[in-house]
Amino acid sequence: MSDAAHKAMWEKLDLDIEAHDGLLAVLGKFYGDIYLSQEGRLKGAEYLDFVLSEVHGLRIKEIQDAKAAGKKIVGTFCVFVPEELTLAAGAVQVGLCAGAKAGTELAETLVPRGTCDLIKSFVGFKLARLCPYTESCDLIVGETTCDGKKKAYEAFSQLANMHIMEVPQCKAPCDMTLFRSELVRYKEALEKLTGNAITAAALAEATKVVNAKRRALQRLSALRAADPAPISGRDALLINQISFYDDPVRFTAKINELCDEIEARVAAGQGVAPKKTPRLLLAGCPMAVPNWKLPYLIESSGAVIVGEESCIGERNTRDLTDETPADLDGMLDALAARYMQIDCACFTPNDERLDNIAALAKRLGADGVVHYGLLFCQPYAHEAMKVGKAMAAAGIPYLAIETDYGMEDAGQLKTRVEAFVETLA
Amino acid sequence: MSDAAHKAMWEKLDLDIEAHDGLLAVLGKFYGDIYLSQEGRLKGAEYLDFVLSEVHGLRIKEIQDAKAAGKKIVGTFCVFVPEELTLAAGAVQVGLCAGAKAGTELAETLVPRGTCDLIKSFVGFKLARLCPYTESCDLIVGETTCDGKKKAYEAFSQLANMHIMEVPQCKAPCDMTLFRSELVRYKEALEKLTGNAITAAALAEATKVVNAKRRALQRLSALRAADPAPISGRDALLINQISFYDDPVRFTAKINELCDEIEARVAAGQGVAPKKTPRLLLAGCPMAVPNWKLPYLIESSGAVIVGEESCIGERNTRDLTDETPADLDGMLDALAARYMQIDCACFTPNDERLDNIAALAKRLGADGVVHYGLLFCQPYAHEAMKVGKAMAAAGIPYLAIETDYGMEDAGQLKTRVEAFVETLA
Ligand code: SF4
Ligand code: SF4
Ligand code: SF4
Ligand code: SF4
Repeated sequence: MSDAAHKAMWEKLDLDIEAHDGLLAVLGKFYGDIYLSQEGRLKGAEYLDFVLSEVHGLRIKEIQDAKAAGKKIVGTFCVFVPEELTLAAGAVQVGLCAGAKAGTELAETLVPRGTCDLIKSFVGFKLARLCPYTESCDLIVGETTCDGKKKAYEAFSQLANMHIMEVPQCKAPCDMTLFRSELVRYKEALEKLTGNAITAAALAEATKVVNAKRRALQRLSALRAADPAPISGRDALLINQISFYDDPVRFTAKINELCDEIEARVAAGQGVAPKKTPRLLLAGCPMAVPNWKLPYLIESSGAVIVGEESCIGERNTRDLTDETPADLDGMLDALAARYMQIDCACFTPNDERLDNIAALAKRLGADGVVHYGLLFCQPYAHEAMKVGKAMAAAGIPYLAIETDYGMEDAGQLKTRVEAFVETLA
Repeated sequence: MSDAAHKAMWEKLDLDIEAHDGLLAVLGKFYGDIYLSQEGRLKGAEYLDFVLSEVHGLRIKEIQDAKAAGKKIVGTFCVFVPEELTLAAGAVQVGLCAGAKAGTELAETLVPRGTCDLIKSFVGFKLARLCPYTESCDLIVGETTCDGKKKAYEAFSQLANMHIMEVPQCKAPCDMTLFRSELVRYKEALEKLTGNAITAAALAEATKVVNAKRRALQRLSALRAADPAPISGRDALLINQISFYDDPVRFTAKINELCDEIEARVAAGQGVAPKKTPRLLLAGCPMAVPNWKLPYLIESSGAVIVGEESCIGERNTRDLTDETPADLDGMLDALAARYMQIDCACFTPNDERLDNIAALAKRLGADGVVHYGLLFCQPYAHEAMKVGKAMAAAGIPYLAIETDYGMEDAGQLKTRVEAFVETLA
């Protein structure tokens, strides 16, 4: 796309063009430093570079074209929103979780200072008119997961057309019932939005599409058990980030191609870091584009990341939706069962997450676990303490990091990470 | 009770005697400065002074006697736990919400630093073995209200026998259903704990007892509409605090006596502060014993507090439970309906709270609203911003304070409060 075409599109979306230019410049620089500087990258990473370079360009153009053809765009902030239903209604789903510090001052007019940067980021992006995805949405779906988001949506709903989905806090039968009824409510909201009835056939097809995406990402995850590590953690994180906004069918094909290349690499005993490089599993809060700070610090401290336990990672891809039910009711049951397996810190208790982390570390051959908590995120701050105890019990070295989107603590973090990596070497 | 008898009792409860002595000394000094120094106090305040002076003495003795007679003691942290059911099971309910900074360092081994002082306080009291109420409990009931408490209970349940009650996050029919089923589950837990079946007759009787307590507190609240204010905000807050742990029948009788005295005062045009003293409504987070910092600052800055909107105040007493159902099912429905009216910030949306605050300010003839948010409390921090907008729209002067249990900011707060009060005079 030409620069002029880009600009015309952004103007139509009423972005703040000047501020948006600034954001893209920073993003480009950041990407160059963190991604393009990597050595021994996969050939298939060209796809990632292309998608990222056109993140506010071609993909937005596709979305505008879809809108022009009558499709609706649904934005989300959480992996609890079932993409199966969104696709079955003929709509496009995009993840809006924002990973950049932008519009913070504006955001703090709507949400308290003591709010995590992820929330401030999506509020700030909206208020500062910086995100073409947000501005393209016909509906934005919020959920009652953490206090921060739950309450922020009250303010955010003054700015956008929202549907709030209730996610229960426990996993007893009454919670399953509640969530099942919320699925129906979401289905009805989609039908109203799009004018399309969600049929069993459409939902079955959409479930196949979403499962195929998950399978491709599971395949990628499994390949990362190889030593030497065949792909950097940064690239793998980026793949998971892109999975939230690229076209799911194209994305799946591209990732499977990439996995073919990785398989060959593994077979040839090649990797992005020498054998015996300390291998780390990253756990904790989701990292949205362009939140690459901690992965970059880790991978420039002599370690390689072999897995992401977060929602931009395993938590979003571990479980498939059962494809066997043939009627709508059975499919909705299957969706409820699948989504209620998510081990988000917002649940109490959430002990399965401790087991899942230990099992994942083992499967990936990780030498240690780094827990990433976003400052002011209470659910994951609590669990960081619990994960620490569980890892100690399992004999897995553990480092808990709490940080935000700022760069002020980068030096200090690097020192801590380096010291941790040294104990593993 | 003699000092020796006290000490023997506390030793039996395995309190840390030395640390506990220190706590009582601070509490006594604090009470003297903040309460006993007041002028023109009600005669009935002697009851308050007595209860407070024996807060860890006689009342604990009564509780131990009840235990010896086979009664069970149930501790709570939230007004969502239905005292009607607890009493109907023949158990004693005590509120454990702690208002003192104690055991903070110990608490931070179990909960994150970025946790509100109320939570740190109850965790700290437990770990430091400082609270004879906590140590007397046979069961402690937690609830999934805010993220902080929900996750803290996971750690706390390692230290005490707990029952976790799920409180939903919205108020749709499916939420009513969920909460109704949680009432049944709590009822069953009580029956198991006490060995007593909860009968319709017992629940009807218990509902009368709890409603009578609420009516007495409603009567007190209504009398505070008088100008001059007939009772200080500190004393009224203390009454609400005591309502959580004193015997409900005795408490109700005492408060009604006190209200008789207040009525006479009002009729005589007497009060604790001259007419035209700026009148403030305090809104926000609950203030547990001995969290009297902000009320004291306000009332020593030339204003008088005429109402507490918090859970240690109106939110706990505004709604009665319908006494008309004759069967258990109907009574449980009535309980669900009553408790789901609570306008806690943990709900989304929670707009009724904005209306309730404006209506309460009007009813009490308040000249302004002070919103108290506890540092790191996200639900009330969000609502503080919304209440501010609602008060601006209603033309009610508004001051939002965020603080913790520490005394470091007392001077600064006093300056802000004085400046606010000046604008009202
Ligand atoms: S961490 Fe929890 S709230 Fe956040 S995206 Fe994942 S499931 Fe949703
Ligand atoms: S990082 Fe934590 S506080 Fe922030 S949105 Fe996610 S769960 Fe909520
Ligand atoms: S403020 Fe909410 S969580 Fe706290 S005691 Fe009141 S109802 Fe319970
Ligand atoms: S003050 Fe706020 S954070 Fe603390 S327990 Fe109450 S609702 Fe939770």
